[in-house]
Amino acid sequence: MIVIDGTREENLHYKWRPDLKPIARVGDGEKFKVIIPDASTMQVRPGMGAEDLARADSTKFDAAVGPIYVEGAKPGDVLAVDILDMQVGDWGWSAILSFMGLLKGRFKDLLVHWRIGDGRAQAVGGFLRGIRVPVKPFLGVVGVAPGEGEFGMIPPQSFGGNMDNRLHGVGARIYLPVSVEGALLSLADPHASQGDGEVSGTAIETSASVVVRASVVKGLRVGRPFTMAPSRDEPGEVIATMGISSDLHRAAVEALEDMLAILGKWYGLTPEEGYVLSSVVGNLRISEIVDEPNYVVTLTMPKSIGEWMGNPR
Amino acid sequence: MIVIDGTREENLHYKWRPDLKPIARVGDGEKFKVIIPDASTMQVRPGMGAEDLARADSTKFDAAVGPIYVEGAKPGDVLAVDILDMQVGDWGWSAILSFMGLLKGRFKDLLVHWRIGDGRAQAVGGFLRGIRVPVKPFLGVVGVAPGEGEFGMIPPQSFGGNMDNRLHGVGARIYLPVSVEGALLSLADPHASQGDGEVSGTAIETSASVVVRASVVKGLRVGRPFTMAPSRDEPGEVIATMGISSDLHRAAVEALEDMLAILGKWYGLTPEEGYVLSSVVGNLRISEIVDEPNYVVTLTMPKSIGEWMGNPR
Repeated sequence: MIVIDGTREENLHYKWRPDLKPIARVGDGEKFKVIIPDASTMQVRPGMGAEDLARADSTKFDAAVGPIYVEGAKPGDVLAVDILDMQVGDWGWSAILSFMGLLKGRFKDLLVHWRIGDGRAQAVGGFLRGIRVPVKPFLGVVGVAPGEGEFGMIPPQSFGGNMDNRLHGVGARIYLPVSVEGALLSLADPHASQGDGEVSGTAIETSASVVVRASVVKGLRVGRPFTMAPSRDEPGEVIATMGISSDLHRAAVEALEDMLAILGKWYGLTPEEGYVLSSVVGNLRISEIVDEPNYVVTLTMPKSIGEWMGNPR
Repeated sequence: MIVIDGTREENLHYKWRPDLKPIARVGDGEKFKVIIPDASTMQVRPGMGAEDLARADSTKFDAAVGPIYVEGAKPGDVLAVDILDMQVGDWGWSAILSFMGLLKGRFKDLLVHWRIGDGRAQAVGGFLRGIRVPVKPFLGVVGVAPGEGEFGMIPPQSFGGNMDNRLHGVGARIYLPVSVEGALLSLADPHASQGDGEVSGTAIETSASVVVRASVVKGLRVGRPFTMAPSRDEPGEVIATMGISSDLHRAAVEALEDMLAILGKWYGLTPEEGYVLSSVVGNLRISEIVDEPNYVVTLTMPKSIGEWMGNPR
């Protein structure tokens, strides 16, 4: 199995561009392993304080491992990225950064360190009074190259990137619209735990070793990412569509439009049927509200709607 | 047990006002039963079509049963409303109304009828291809009188009302800020099922018989509703704070501010601790995005954070 080591500088990039040189090539459907540094790209170290964090180079935040060329992927295809395994590091960090977050400017900078083990994370030094948070790892950043232009790492875009969607853990299949030959897949920003929203701007940031498979899907034209994944909260899987916009209302409309398209294509439902079904069982959630200027609103639909059909066509 | 019958016109009101005459009085902590008509206030009948719905009187939508005077409730108190039991009717309806919903103007009016039984709802007439949606009942409208002014029934407000929060089913305790003597509690809008968002503008609308207890809580000053409830998706309960605003981003900020206040008061967490905890395990969800001009964003926190504390103060 190919192993791509993102702790080596030559395997990282700090911008999304269509013309980056691939650091590796993988076959369509081939499994490979990626070692992914934390969101600070190894600038945060155990024992470091908030003053050190303030001096960190924010242009290096969310550096992505890649890009990885996937054989056979052509513009107009979709890349299906399966997260097969994910092992997180034994420590992590969270921060309050006065320049970001839903309550930005309200608090002073703060850097919290977490010990991670036995499926739990516990903040160091008495912060959070010993609360042991369940570890539910996922990848904050999963993206492919844009068709044109250059984009920073923090805002998510129609080609994916920093979606900070907590559904993107083991078992998830993330579909991304391909814009360039080889798709140019990149991964970054492992999180040991994060709620819908990531309200302070950071999750439990950590490193990870991830086993991934990327498969080329032909004939499925989509303009934005969507995902099939275990729901994280209840038994079973969900279909998750994502609207990505600086306006939360617009993002919700996009997520709903994409859901109606999928329910039509895969389940044969009319737009009216999809709209009513989305209203009575679909859940609108704010995946992130801090990666300015773009936010992600996710609409989830239980995949079990298929089993709920008494008389399928 | 007092039974209040909301199918009788004299037990309904169509505006929120501080000076409505109570239709019943209950003791602090007394159980009582409320029969609640559907959101159309019995205008929608089985077999009716979309043309009939278009002729319905929309000023009668979400008519509330009440107001109910709760002994001992004074301005500045909080009223805790426990939903102890809820039995929904054996049929319901959903609609696409061209003048409302997240995709308003996109579709023609449509009225869908549901058969409800054995914990499932199935649309009548082949719509949704026989999909049998699990029934998860809750009350769309739970509110007390405003301190002043007159408000329509559709938009939720700081005193509650049409929050359409699917957490408000059996086992929920909804806290509402009291503005007038007796609180003047009202209930309406039973839903057999609805996702976070209620994107089309309607859930599975139905009638219900609900057993409720209202208790006066002194010394807990809050400016907006909040709730303790079974999570509906996973085992365990959640603390849920609700921001209510025409701006989704503002609503999210309000929900977060209220959560930090509760985590401080009940768990002794500093605002910084509450902020980081909300980021790593709190979930921002859009409870409704259609009750114009106000939307509800809910932040949920697992109540088990209390059990996660290794060394509680």
